[in-house]
Amino acid sequence: MKKIRISVVGATSLTARILLQLLCRHPHVEIAILTSDSSPGTPVSKRYTFLQGRYDGVFKSYNQDEILEETDLVFLTKQHGEFLPDTIRLFNAAQKINREFKIIDLSADFRLKNPENYETWYKFEHSGIDLLEQAVYGLPELHRKEIKNAGLIANPGCYPTTAILGTAPFVHHHQADPNCVIIDGYSGTSGAGMRPNERNMAITTMENLLPYKIGIHQHTPEIEQELSLTGNEPVTVTFVPHVAPFRFGMCANIYLKMLGSLKSEDGTELMKGFYQKEPFLRVLNPGEYPEIRNVVGTNWCEIGYVYDPRTNTGIVLSAIDNAVKGASGQAVQNMNIMYGWEETTGLT
Amino acid sequence: MKKIRISVVGATSLTARILLQLLCRHPHVEIAILTSDSSPGTPVSKRYTFLQGRYDGVFKSYNQDEILEETDLVFLTKQHGEFLPDTIRLFNAAQKINREFKIIDLSADFRLKNPENYETWYKFEHSGIDLLEQAVYGLPELHRKEIKNAGLIANPGCYPTTAILGTAPFVHHHQADPNCVIIDGYSGTSGAGMRPNERNMAITTMENLLPYKIGIHQHTPEIEQELSLTGNEPVTVTFVPHVAPFRFGMCANIYLKMLGSLKSEDGTELMKGFYQKEPFLRVLNPGEYPEIRNVVGTNWCEIGYVYDPRTNTGIVLSAIDNAVKGASGQAVQNMNIMYGWEETTGLT
Amino acid sequence: MKKIRISVVGATSLTARILLQLLCRHPHVEIAILTSDSSPGTPVSKRYTFLQGRYDGVFKSYNQDEILEETDLVFLTKQHGEFLPDTIRLFNAAQKINREFKIIDLSADFRLKNPENYETWYKFEHSGIDLLEQAVYGLPELHRKEIKNAGLIANPGCYPTTAILGTAPFVHHHQADPNCVIIDGYSGTSGAGMRPNERNMAITTMENLLPYKIGIHQHTPEIEQELSLTGNEPVTVTFVPHVAPFRFGMCANIYLKMLGSLKSEDGTELMKGFYQKEPFLRVLNPGEYPEIRNVVGTNWCEIGYVYDPRTNTGIVLSAIDNAVKGASGQAVQNMNIMYGWEETTGLT
Amino acid sequence: MKKIRISVVGATSLTARILLQLLCRHPHVEIAILTSDSSPGTPVSKRYTFLQGRYDGVFKSYNQDEILEETDLVFLTKQHGEFLPDTIRLFNAAQKINREFKIIDLSADFRLKNPENYETWYKFEHSGIDLLEQAVYGLPELHRKEIKNAGLIANPGCYPTTAILGTAPFVHHHQADPNCVIIDGYSGTSGAGMRPNERNMAITTMENLLPYKIGIHQHTPEIEQELSLTGNEPVTVTFVPHVAPFRFGMCANIYLKMLGSLKSEDGTELMKGFYQKEPFLRVLNPGEYPEIRNVVGTNWCEIGYVYDPRTNTGIVLSAIDNAVKGASGQAVQNMNIMYGWEETTGLT
Repeated sequence: MKKIRISVVGATSLTARILLQLLCRHPHVEIAILTSDSSPGTPVSKRYTFLQGRYDGVFKSYNQDEILEETDLVFLTKQHGEFLPDTIRLFNAAQKINREFKIIDLSADFRLKNPENYETWYKFEHSGIDLLEQAVYGLPELHRKEIKNAGLIANPGCYPTTAILGTAPFVHHHQADPNCVIIDGYSGTSGAGMRPNERNMAITTMENLLPYKIGIHQHTPEIEQELSLTGNEPVTVTFVPHVAPFRFGMCANIYLKMLGSLKSEDGTELMKGFYQKEPFLRVLNPGEYPEIRNVVGTNWCEIGYVYDPRTNTGIVLSAIDNAVKGASGQAVQNMNIMYGWEETTGLT
Repeated sequence: MKKIRISVVGATSLTARILLQLLCRHPHVEIAILTSDSSPGTPVSKRYTFLQGRYDGVFKSYNQDEILEETDLVFLTKQHGEFLPDTIRLFNAAQKINREFKIIDLSADFRLKNPENYETWYKFEHSGIDLLEQAVYGLPELHRKEIKNAGLIANPGCYPTTAILGTAPFVHHHQADPNCVIIDGYSGTSGAGMRPNERNMAITTMENLLPYKIGIHQHTPEIEQELSLTGNEPVTVTFVPHVAPFRFGMCANIYLKMLGSLKSEDGTELMKGFYQKEPFLRVLNPGEYPEIRNVVGTNWCEIGYVYDPRTNTGIVLSAIDNAVKGASGQAVQNMNIMYGWEETTGLT
Repeated sequence: MKKIRISVVGATSLTARILLQLLCRHPHVEIAILTSDSSPGTPVSKRYTFLQGRYDGVFKSYNQDEILEETDLVFLTKQHGEFLPDTIRLFNAAQKINREFKIIDLSADFRLKNPENYETWYKFEHSGIDLLEQAVYGLPELHRKEIKNAGLIANPGCYPTTAILGTAPFVHHHQADPNCVIIDGYSGTSGAGMRPNERNMAITTMENLLPYKIGIHQHTPEIEQELSLTGNEPVTVTFVPHVAPFRFGMCANIYLKMLGSLKSEDGTELMKGFYQKEPFLRVLNPGEYPEIRNVVGTNWCEIGYVYDPRTNTGIVLSAIDNAVKGASGQAVQNMNIMYGWEETTGLT
Repeated sequence: MKKIRISVVGATSLTARILLQLLCRHPHVEIAILTSDSSPGTPVSKRYTFLQGRYDGVFKSYNQDEILEETDLVFLTKQHGEFLPDTIRLFNAAQKINREFKIIDLSADFRLKNPENYETWYKFEHSGIDLLEQAVYGLPELHRKEIKNAGLIANPGCYPTTAILGTAPFVHHHQADPNCVIIDGYSGTSGAGMRPNERNMAITTMENLLPYKIGIHQHTPEIEQELSLTGNEPVTVTFVPHVAPFRFGMCANIYLKMLGSLKSEDGTELMKGFYQKEPFLRVLNPGEYPEIRNVVGTNWCEIGYVYDPRTNTGIVLSAIDNAVKGASGQAVQNMNIMYGWEETTGLT
C-alpha cells in the first residue's frame, strides 16, 4: 500500500510532539514536511530524538505550494486564530486544483458553527464563515460518517472531548435537564502548553489546584454546540476548569439534574448502548470510577455513571489523556477514518 | 497565668502530630499526658523530634483516672467509633466529680445530632444518645457562643468544614435552592491517614485524581445537619470526594442553584457580611480564586464566589488545610474560645 | 509460527502487571497460566482490564506439573527467597523429563554467584548452590551469548541495571579506579512495590527525598560481581539509594576516580564503542544529560559522561524505567534472545 | 525597644516574598520601604495578602537617599551582577555620612573574595574589589563573630549552605582528602525562581530529575572558598546540581575520601562537637537520615554521617529549606546577630 505523505504545521509545539510520536509508529503514513517558523533549518531529530533514523530532514518554513504538492494531509497545530487566514487560503487552493488534499486542524479555528461565538469567546472576528459550515467537528463517536468524507476536520478540544463524551448519552436520550449541566474539569499542566506561564510552572501547580476562567472558558460554546446537536435542543452548561498537579491527563465530574430517576445500573446500560462498538470508549460498571492513570498515554476515554437518589442528581465521571484522545490521538483516529483504515491503527 | 494541662489520646496519629506541633508553641498550655496503645513506654521525642527539649516523657497507656486527675483538657484523636464507650465513661466520670474538665473529640463520634445517621452512614449504633445533644459542634464561625461553655466539643470533619463555610452564607440568606447543593471536594493524601491504603500510596495518587464513595461518604449528613440549622430548613447535598495528588490541603467547588440572580459582587458582599470579624475566614474579591497553596500550613479558610448568569448557577470555592483548619488547628481554635483566650493564640 | 506458551508465577505483583502489559502485545507468545496464591479463582481480566478480550482465564494456585506440561517458559515474580525451593524443584523436574523448558526469575535468587553473599546481604542460606553457576545473569549488554542458551535466567535488579550499564565501559577499559566507584541512585516509589510501607506512601515520598540502606543495600554485591567480571579485577562500590517523588523511573549519578584524564568527548566515544549496535542503549553526546522523562515507559537506558578536570572525576549519568528495563522489559528482552526473535519484539 | 526600619530592594522576587513573611512576624523590625522597578505604585498588600493590615504602602522605585534616610537596614534580593554598582554607591554613601547603616545582600555579588572567580564563574568583571574584603560571608556557623560587626553581609547561596555545613567539620579536622570532595545536590524548583524556564516548569520537573551545569555551577568556588578557609588548606570539590520534583527544600549527598577510618559514631560525635550550641543545626544519630520534609518551612539544617568501611568513604547527608536557611531565613538570622538579638527571633 502506498503511504500517505504527511505534513505538520507548527511542528515544535507540545501537541506536535505527541502527534509525531504517534505518526512515526503508524504503518500507513510517512512524514514529509515539518514546518517551524521559529527554527527553520534545524535538524528535526535533534529536537525529537525518537525520530532518529526515521526522519532525517530539517524543520522548514511554511510554504503553501510545497505542502500542497508534496503531501496528502496536513495537521495544523498552531494556536487559535494564528493560522486562520493561511488555512483558508490553503483549503481554497486545494479545491481549485481539484486535488484530494485533507486538513486536520487541531486549533479551535473551525470548531464553532456560529461565527459570533468567535467574537464572544475568542475575541476575534472569523474571516472564513463559509468554511465553518464545511468543516466537520472531528469527534468520531458523534460524527464518524461526516468525518469519512471531510476535507477539513476541526479536531475537538480536550475539555470538550471529555465533557461531551460523558454527557452526550444523557442529553441524547433526554434524561437530563438541558439547562442544568455542570462540568467540573481538571487538566494536567501540559494543557497549558510549553510557553511558560503561571498554569504550567511547578511552583504554582504542585501541591495545589488552580481554578481559572470560571464560567468564561472558551471551550464552553464548543461543548454546548455539540450537546445541543446531540440532544436536538439547546443545552447550556456551567464549566469550571482547573489545572491539577499532574502533567498529562484530564478528567471531569459532570453533574446532571435528572428528568427521571435513572439508576446507576440503568444509566450505565444507556451509556453502553450509546457507545456500542466504539473502539476507544470504556463504560465502567457501577462501583468503578474512571481514573486518569487508567487512560494516560492512550487514546481511551473512560466514563462511569453514579446516580444519587437523595438529590436526583446524575454524576458522570469522564477521563482521557488530554494530549492523546484530547488532541493528537484523536487527530490520528480522524485520519484513520478519513482513509478507511482500521480506526485503531497506530493507536494501540 | 497558670498553664492548662493537656492530654492527647491516640497520640501517634497524623492528626495528633499536627496537634502537638501547634500545642508546643501555644503559650497557655503544657503537654501532660500522651497516650498510645501501640507504643507505650516509647520516648515521645523519639517520634516527634520537634518536642525534644519541650516534652521529655514517654507514651502511656490510656488510664481514665490519670487523665482526669492530671489534666484539664483532653484531645481525642482516635478513629470514629473506636473510643466512643471510653469517651462516654470519661465524660460521665468528670461530671460526677464535678470537675471542670473539657473534652475535644476530633473523631466523628459526637458530630451528628440524629443517632440514626450513625447507623446509616457509619454502620454502628451509637451508645451515648443523650450525650449527642450535650456535645457542641465545634465550628466557631457558626457556634462560637455554645463552644464557650461546652464540656464536650465535637470537632468538625475536614470536608464539612470546607463545605459548610462556603455554603452557609447562601443557605442562611435563602439565596440558594436547598435541594440542589453539589459539593465537589478534593483532599490531600494526608486525609487518608498514616495506615497505608490505596488512597495514600504514591503510586495510586500521584499523576492521578481518585474519586471515592460518591454519594455515600459519611461526611454527608454532617454537612446537611449544619446547613439545615443555618438555613432553618432541610438542606440536602450531593457530595463527591476525591483524593488529589498533594499531601496537605483541601478544596471544594460548591455548585448552587440560585433562587435570585445574585451577582459575583453581591454574593461576595453577602459572604463578607456573614463572616465579618472572623479571624480565620478570608473572603476573596470577585476575580480572585481560593487556592490550597494560600492556606496550607495555616488555620485560614479562603472562600470566593462566582455567579454564572448563563445558567443561574452560583459557584463557591473554598480552601483550607485539611489537617489544620480541617482538624487540629480548629481544635486549638475551639480550645482558645473555651478558655477565653485570644482566638488566634498559637495559630499564627 | 507457533506461539510460545507463557506462565507467570506471582501474577498479582506490580512487576507482573508491567510484564503482562508487555506480553499481551507480544506477537510470538500466548499467556497460558497465571498463578496467584492470594486470589486463586479470580478472573484475571477483573484485575487487569487491559487483558479483557485477550485472556479470559482465572488466577490459579501454583502447580508444578501443570506449569511444566502446559507452558514453555515461566516468569517468576516473587520476592527474593520466597520461591527459591520451588524454583530448584521446577528446574530439576524440567531437566529430568529432558524437556526444553525455560525459567526467567525476576527475583534476586540466582543473581549472585558467590553463595556467601546471600548470607551477608540477604540474610538467608542459599539451598541451590550448584544452580547458581548454571544460572545466567540476564543483562544482554554483557551476557547476550550465554543468555541465548540459558535454561535459567537471573533477571537483573533495577539499581544494578542502571549502575552496571553506566560503569561497565570504564572499568572494562581500566579507565577508573576500581576501589573508588560511588553510585548515587534514585528510584521511583514503584520500586517499593504495592505492599504499603514508608517508601511508597505519598505523605513520606512527595516533596521529599528519602535515603535508605546507605552502604548496606542488597544490590551492592550484584553490582560489584558484574563490574568485577567486566573489569577482570575486583571492583568495590559505595552505593547510596533513595526514593524520589515520582512513580516510575530510576537514575544514578556514578562518580569515578579516573586513572587518566579521560575527557568528556573521549569518554563518550568509549561508551559508544562499548555499546555499538545495542538496541536499547542510548549514549548521549557531551552537554546532553540523561533524564528519566526520556526513558520512562520504555526499555531504553540513557547514559552520558562528563569529565571534571578540576578534580579528575568522571561523572556518569544513567537513567532507565525501573519497571521496564529494570525488570519486566528486560525479562522480555531476555526471552526474545532465548528464542532467537528480533530483540526488540514487543518492546517498541 | 525602638524598632529597626527595614527596606527590601527587589521586593517582588520569590526570595523577597519569603523574607517578608519572616519579617512581618519579627518583633523588632518594621517594614519601611519596599522597592520594585517593575511595579512601582502598586499596593504591596495586593501582591502579598499576608501583609494586609501590617503594611499598607506601595512598592516604590529605588531611591538611594530615601533608603539611607528612612531605613536602618536594607536587604538586597536582586540577581547577581544586577545591582552591584548601586550596592557599591550605597555602601560608600553610608560610610561618608558616617551613619550606622547595614546591608545584607542576598545575591552572590560579595560572596567571593577572589575577584577572578567572578570572571571565571559568573562571566563579569567585579567593579568593587576593595569591598569584597570588607564584606562578611554570612554563614553564622562559621563567621558569627565577624557578622556581629559587619556593615555588608554577603548572604550565602543555598547549595553552599547545604554543602559547607555538611563538609566543614571533616575538612576542619583534616579527616577527609581535600581533593576528593563530591557534592551531589538536589534543589526544589523554587531554586529556579519565578521567571519561567525549563527548570521550574511542571512538565519538565515533575516525574523527573533534571541534572544541570555539571562541574560548572557558579556555586562551586563559593563552596571551595569556605571549605579551604575552614580546613586551612585548598579544598577542591566536584559539584553536580539537580532540580528535583518538589517545590521547596534542598539536600546534598557529600562523598568524602576519608584519611582515617572515621566510623559513623565517631564522625557523628565530631559533627556534634563542631556544631555545639548552634541554634539551627541538628546532627542526627547514626541510622537516622536527614530528610527535606523535616526541615522544609524552617531555618534548620539537618546533617548525618555514615561511614562505608568497604570503600573507606564518608557519606554526609545535609538538608535545608533552600528558601529559608538557604536564603531569607539565614538573612534574618544574620540580622539578629548584627543587632545582638536572640539569634532565633522570628525564626521559630
